[in-house]
Amino acid sequence: MIYLDNAATTKMDSQVLEAMLPYLSESYLNPSAFYQGAVKIRMQVEGARRSIAEKLGVPSDTIFFTSGGTESDNWAIRLAAQLQCEKGKHIITCAIEHPAVLNTFKYLQENGYDVTYVGVDRSGRIDLTQLKESIREDTVLISIMHANNELGTIEPIEEIGQIAHEKDILFHTDAVQTFGHIPIDVDGCNIDLMSVSGHKLYGPKGIGFLYIRDRRRFGRLHFGGSQEKGLRPGTENVPGIIGLSKAVEIAYDRLEQDITSVSALRDLFAAEIKKAIPGVCINGDNEHHLPGTVNVTFKGILGESLLIALDQSGICASAGSACSAGAIEPSHVLIACGLTPDEAGRTLRFSIGRNNTPEEILKTISVLKTICRV
Amino acid sequence: MIYLDNAATTKMDSQVLEAMLPYLSESYLNPSAFYQGAVKIRMQVEGARRSIAEKLGVPSDTIFFTSGGTESDNWAIRLAAQLQCEKGKHIITCAIEHPAVLNTFKYLQENGYDVTYVGVDRSGRIDLTQLKESIREDTVLISIMHANNELGTIEPIEEIGQIAHEKDILFHTDAVQTFGHIPIDVDGCNIDLMSVSGHKLYGPKGIGFLYIRDRRRFGRLHFGGSQEKGLRPGTENVPGIIGLSKAVEIAYDRLEQDITSVSALRDLFAAEIKKAIPGVCINGDNEHHLPGTVNVTFKGILGESLLIALDQSGICASAGSACSAGAIEPSHVLIACGLTPDEAGRTLRFSIGRNNTPEEILKTISVLKTICRV
Repeated sequence: MIYLDNAATTKMDSQVLEAMLPYLSESYLNPSAFYQGAVKIRMQVEGARRSIAEKLGVPSDTIFFTSGGTESDNWAIRLAAQLQCEKGKHIITCAIEHPAVLNTFKYLQENGYDVTYVGVDRSGRIDLTQLKESIREDTVLISIMHANNELGTIEPIEEIGQIAHEKDILFHTDAVQTFGHIPIDVDGCNIDLMSVSGHKLYGPKGIGFLYIRDRRRFGRLHFGGSQEKGLRPGTENVPGIIGLSKAVEIAYDRLEQDITSVSALRDLFAAEIKKAIPGVCINGDNEHHLPGTVNVTFKGILGESLLIALDQSGICASAGSACSAGAIEPSHVLIACGLTPDEAGRTLRFSIGRNNTPEEILKTISVLKTICRV
Repeated sequence: MIYLDNAATTKMDSQVLEAMLPYLSESYLNPSAFYQGAVKIRMQVEGARRSIAEKLGVPSDTIFFTSGGTESDNWAIRLAAQLQCEKGKHIITCAIEHPAVLNTFKYLQENGYDVTYVGVDRSGRIDLTQLKESIREDTVLISIMHANNELGTIEPIEEIGQIAHEKDILFHTDAVQTFGHIPIDVDGCNIDLMSVSGHKLYGPKGIGFLYIRDRRRFGRLHFGGSQEKGLRPGTENVPGIIGLSKAVEIAYDRLEQDITSVSALRDLFAAEIKKAIPGVCINGDNEHHLPGTVNVTFKGILGESLLIALDQSGICASAGSACSAGAIEPSHVLIACGLTPDEAGRTLRFSIGRNNTPEEILKTISVLKTICRV
């Protein structure tokens, strides 16, 4: 199998599993319990939190574990809106966000909030002028993703954070595609809330976190016990937390190395596909893009047919995000970038990860060449 | 270590870990993806769902995986209330529910709902007359737990379900303490919504499910992708789902055997503690109780002092639930049963599980005898 769908999920690092194993067997105590053995588990959970916070350069009491990116996005956006509803009910996002963000905004819109969906250019970069112009007296939240999951385009979050900060508007970013893959300057970008998912960075599924800069300004999405400083109740997913922390540690240890090697594979892919297959168009931003994601529009062949043929050769790629894989509609991301539904239907995402090799890339191009009968 | 806190969490069965391991390494694909390898994972997730549904005797499309009991409770209660708000805004629960239920009701109460908290008798059994009398034209939800987590008292959910059914009121039950421990007749009890957590039945932390009898009448708590028939978005926690399914399979395979052996240990504990320590009082219902939970009020010694001394002898027990372990306030459950704050402060929970032995029970009684200086 050649796995080129690392933006959908990643293979968990074997060191992550190793770190989790004790917590899946002997170290099972409930971290909220009274006895010393449980206190030890609680300290290990806090150690994991501290370790993640250190990598981000933020205080450890700003990291709140959740069940993943979707819960983090829901929590951040709904509470940021709800807690400020007396200040104003205008909230801003962009057209190419993940469904976890877009559908949460849609829910708020149906419940009395005014939403502005800022547009993007052909490369998927947000229109900063439109963003600035859309800000009103009653704007209370801007939620813009750090990088798009389909295109790999990185958004100008430093500028967005600056704009939000100047107007005293909360800034949330969905960093599910970027955390552990490229550096994130939380303070420098004035990020107030940030969503992260474990399984996108070679960590476990079912765990993630929400960074909350100022929890005094914040509330809870779920109600229950006093875990996570009372803000996110439910028995802690200890193996998941320990695994996530280990995945983050590994990701940061090899961040520069992975960026270099994965970028080289992406460059190889892009160069070779252009040489091999006439008429392909690589979407996204040439300069501001994730190391591993390549979004390609083919000529004269449906994406679905391509996917089936690739699958038959043992190659995993994707049309749009995995979350809407069942959907027949063309990608909302590509449409927002100005592609026609026909172009969107001829587009695939290849997302390269740290386990891929140049041989796999060349083999994929060769298979694509055969499929496209070039 | 003698672990008598199985109501807080359980040690994961080694067969559960074994079942999970492939999904924590090679079988990592996103079940929503397009390619055959991912379809295989999707089918295994559906197999797990079917297996759980079969044990419960319900259709498999009524099981929705969540991050655990707290999320399931929040989802069930909030959506049941919200979706029927035009029909009525009166909702009923009882005074001894878990914080995941009580605090969700409190949230709804603060948001325009009328809440009746039905009382319980000294044993923690709900007052059925009061329940019936509290029903109004605008009552839309009754949420009563299957068994209480502190006392082990089993509630008359068949009667409650009957009452709810006759009045066309949705019935939710928090079965976190009972599923996999005692039989549950979902249809016979007219249960519409039921919350379950994996780690209370020798399964993984961070996974649970919500049974939803009729999803056409239901909505979502989180917004995002199309997973779980669009009702619970987010990449599936595949290892957790597989592990939960295995834990359920094991629990049902040995249900009668575990009930017999754990009940015998509980009876031994109860008989021996009464013999060994004068003035102890065993709380809860003599007839309707969980196999393993014993709630004991001691005389002349603080629960906290007892816990510390037990801990020093390597014995894990609990005062109240783990979820509120940090709290100084006396247990709301015991107070609702009519115990004084002083009595509540002298009360401990011992929760026996399938891994405990008669020797551990006798050793615990002997240590308690020494601590209490009898």
